[in-house]
Amino acid sequence: MELRRRLYVIIFGTDTWAGKLFDLTLLSLIVASFLVAVLDSVERYHLQWHDAFLLAEIVFSIIFAVEYATRIWVSPNRWGYVKSLYGIIDLLSLLPILFLWVDPSAAHLVVVRILRVLRLFRILRLTEFLVEEQLLIRAIQQSSKMIFIFFLIVAILATVFGSTMYVIEGPESGFNSIPEGIYWAVVTITTVGYGDITPQTAIGKAVSTLVMLTGYSIIAVPTGVFTASLASEIKSNQRSAFSCPHCGRFGHE
Amino acid sequence: MELRRRLYVIIFGTDTWAGKLFDLTLLSLIVASFLVAVLDSVERYHLQWHDAFLLAEIVFSIIFAVEYATRIWVSPNRWGYVKSLYGIIDLLSLLPILFLWVDPSAAHLVVVRILRVLRLFRILRLTEFLVEEQLLIRAIQQSSKMIFIFFLIVAILATVFGSTMYVIEGPESGFNSIPEGIYWAVVTITTVGYGDITPQTAIGKAVSTLVMLTGYSIIAVPTGVFTASLASEIKSNQRSAFSCPHCGRFGHE
Amino acid sequence: MELRRRLYVIIFGTDTWAGKLFDLTLLSLIVASFLVAVLDSVERYHLQWHDAFLLAEIVFSIIFAVEYATRIWVSPNRWGYVKSLYGIIDLLSLLPILFLWVDPSAAHLVVVRILRVLRLFRILRLTEFLVEEQLLIRAIQQSSKMIFIFFLIVAILATVFGSTMYVIEGPESGFNSIPEGIYWAVVTITTVGYGDITPQTAIGKAVSTLVMLTGYSIIAVPTGVFTASLASEIKSNQRSAFSCPHCGRFGHE
Amino acid sequence: MELRRRLYVIIFGTDTWAGKLFDLTLLSLIVASFLVAVLDSVERYHLQWHDAFLLAEIVFSIIFAVEYATRIWVSPNRWGYVKSLYGIIDLLSLLPILFLWVDPSAAHLVVVRILRVLRLFRILRLTEFLVEEQLLIRAIQQSSKMIFIFFLIVAILATVFGSTMYVIEGPESGFNSIPEGIYWAVVTITTVGYGDITPQTAIGKAVSTLVMLTGYSIIAVPTGVFTASLASEIKSNQRSAFSCPHCGRFGHE
Repeated sequence: MELRRRLYVIIFGTDTWAGKLFDLTLLSLIVASFLVAVLDSVERYHLQWHDAFLLAEIVFSIIFAVEYATRIWVSPNRWGYVKSLYGIIDLLSLLPILFLWVDPSAAHLVVVRILRVLRLFRILRLTEFLVEEQLLIRAIQQSSKMIFIFFLIVAILATVFGSTMYVIEGPESGFNSIPEGIYWAVVTITTVGYGDITPQTAIGKAVSTLVMLTGYSIIAVPTGVFTASLASEIKSNQRSAFSCPHCGRFGHE
Repeated sequence: MELRRRLYVIIFGTDTWAGKLFDLTLLSLIVASFLVAVLDSVERYHLQWHDAFLLAEIVFSIIFAVEYATRIWVSPNRWGYVKSLYGIIDLLSLLPILFLWVDPSAAHLVVVRILRVLRLFRILRLTEFLVEEQLLIRAIQQSSKMIFIFFLIVAILATVFGSTMYVIEGPESGFNSIPEGIYWAVVTITTVGYGDITPQTAIGKAVSTLVMLTGYSIIAVPTGVFTASLASEIKSNQRSAFSCPHCGRFGHE
Repeated sequence: MELRRRLYVIIFGTDTWAGKLFDLTLLSLIVASFLVAVLDSVERYHLQWHDAFLLAEIVFSIIFAVEYATRIWVSPNRWGYVKSLYGIIDLLSLLPILFLWVDPSAAHLVVVRILRVLRLFRILRLTEFLVEEQLLIRAIQQSSKMIFIFFLIVAILATVFGSTMYVIEGPESGFNSIPEGIYWAVVTITTVGYGDITPQTAIGKAVSTLVMLTGYSIIAVPTGVFTASLASEIKSNQRSAFSCPHCGRFGHE
Repeated sequence: MELRRRLYVIIFGTDTWAGKLFDLTLLSLIVASFLVAVLDSVERYHLQWHDAFLLAEIVFSIIFAVEYATRIWVSPNRWGYVKSLYGIIDLLSLLPILFLWVDPSAAHLVVVRILRVLRLFRILRLTEFLVEEQLLIRAIQQSSKMIFIFFLIVAILATVFGSTMYVIEGPESGFNSIPEGIYWAVVTITTVGYGDITPQTAIGKAVSTLVMLTGYSIIAVPTGVFTASLASEIKSNQRSAFSCPHCGRFGHE
């Protein structure tokens, strides 16, 4: 019981000397594990060092598995940790190595471990950071419904534009099917514009022009919605700090 | 008359158990019809299952035609429904199948049925959703005139830049005509950048640089206009909620 | 003198029946002249109809030359008209046809006539339009200095990034010279991304990643500056409409 | 001592006649040195004039070295100048020529001298400019923490998306390694979209669609954060200009 509590402070806490050392070691291991996966994906290194890389990933996986088990063991609220965002990420980063015997290329998925770096937010727990993060999160939540409507409209637009272009251009221009047409429409509306599929006919180019102008202008909607939410969030944050000299109420203008 | 009213509540209403079931069934049919059209556009499935797909689309079309006729019949204001946005979309989604005997590729246009999914907005009628949607729509209306001026200027810029590049680069660089030059200018100003037509000469690249910087910076205009409109809309929404403690008037600052 | 005044009202005015008819006729001629130039640029039509197109452009040019001379003659302030934006555009749209004997391809520049369509702003003179346009113009003026600094920084960034990539990648990757490197940098920073010049080496790709992230994030600066200017402009517009109930002064908060 | 002070006023000052002449001469030399480097990078001119260009760069470098030494000598706070932004840029622009004997292509790096043009900000020291610049800098500082979080999230997203696409698409589609996958993800998220690496499989295209929509929408975050900061900065700037008529305090609303 005594050990469990002490381990809890070291593993989950960030205030003690031992806790800081633990976090630093863990982050180094995560980054090292990530770099090994990256190097293993480069053919030159893969051919020469693959066995060493695989061994390293197995060692890292064992360490992270032990760490994960310990985290569950020392948590006062075990199920709470497992269900938390960090708990899910910790588990996710253990899974890819298990698929190794099914499909060797799945081993590259250990890069998902880089998600564990998000723990940095907790480690660098600066009050200001958290305040700003909360403002950001509240603004995102507040504008999430409008953003959802926006995405629904973009999805419908991409479907309609993509199907229309499939009918206009057809397979001879690279629009092989409606899903490829939708892919092209998303590439165009988001202004990514790979150029792997492009309109060849005059009418196709005219419709594309319309799709591009649509994509170019509707980006204003999520930007505007989020900016307005954030501005209103910042304002109500400042306002709530002092009361009105006339009526003593807080937070009105 | 009794049946007509009951059907009206089921088809147009969303509050009763039967109305919800009807909406759910309709949405499923719309999505199914859409998916059949999508699968039919993929060559592999088209070759193997085309007859089945065509039969399915004809069945879906008959169902939707019956539904459309019923909607007109049960509406208290028939012409009002036909002229409404939903009425037009319902009719539009029936037309493509009729062109089947003219041009078989037109059958793919049944994907326009996906527009009927917009009905979701009405089905998921949450008060908050509607409030936000109205804010959004008011902001779009309020900024529509400035956005129109913006588009007129973009169109004129694209025309002038496109013609200039046609004169500078000419057909040997892919600028085959002024319309193609305008197409290139829209691709560039909107920052889509397919790369199917690119400047080859030094002077052409210099002018392109100017076009790109123009497109990169003027996106600020619609974003700014829409954001400012929305912020002012949100503010006047909040302000109108309480009166001024000094003069009792509503809605001033 | 009597004729000159009457012509002035018809040509420059937009309130009388004759003035409206004149404006409509002029706009039609401008659009017709533009369409002839566009059609002449398409090879198919050029080969078949070039002589007819050329004749049409010469006729249009004579009409516009007569109109330009008349405008100068009837203006009370002649030099004022010649120096005005509309006067300069009117003159510019007459010049290309004169270069015809020097270089036949210059004839395509008659498309600059489309700029005369800007006259639409004056013709559709709606008070609201003008108010909004003035707000827009004031916001652009107010933010112009910050936008200038922004462009200076973008230009310097493009130069430094472009030269660095020229040294890293060199002619074998398409970076033939520093100007081409700068062209690539502008294509990348503005997120256009033609793909005609792309990094091939690992270090080049790493630097490109940095350039892309820079371009992706600094777009926030002109958007933010313009949005904030416009919001503040709209606010001071609303505020100036009524006086403060406490101190009687106008326009404070 | 007398000479040192006089030189200080000429070199660092911008108010005297001699100081303005010095600044103008210096800017001309910087631009000339830059243009020589640019011309030398174009093969045509390089083959013909390389020796002359090299000689010119050596002369420019000697002049700038003498200027740098003089700046150090006349500065009252020598270490302060060396450590200042301008001091570092001045030193940096001297280094490339020294690498000439190691690698001739490094000579092109003299273009970094263009950074010295930033001195223009100091030379054109207009009060308004500085006020706006300070507003801009404060807004950037204020939003820097949120922007940092944003970049961390973009980096993690690019890593996760890039690795996933490497596993899905593999080397046969151009995704040769995880770093190349990350490069592709950055190209896509930033909406640059070169098209040098594009998804070929159906599942790869579906995931790409998600990546594009992510990149298209999250640009709203830095734009929103910066805009809100700037708007709040401008407001507090205006507010602090007069006191509240009720309580005499400054800067509240």
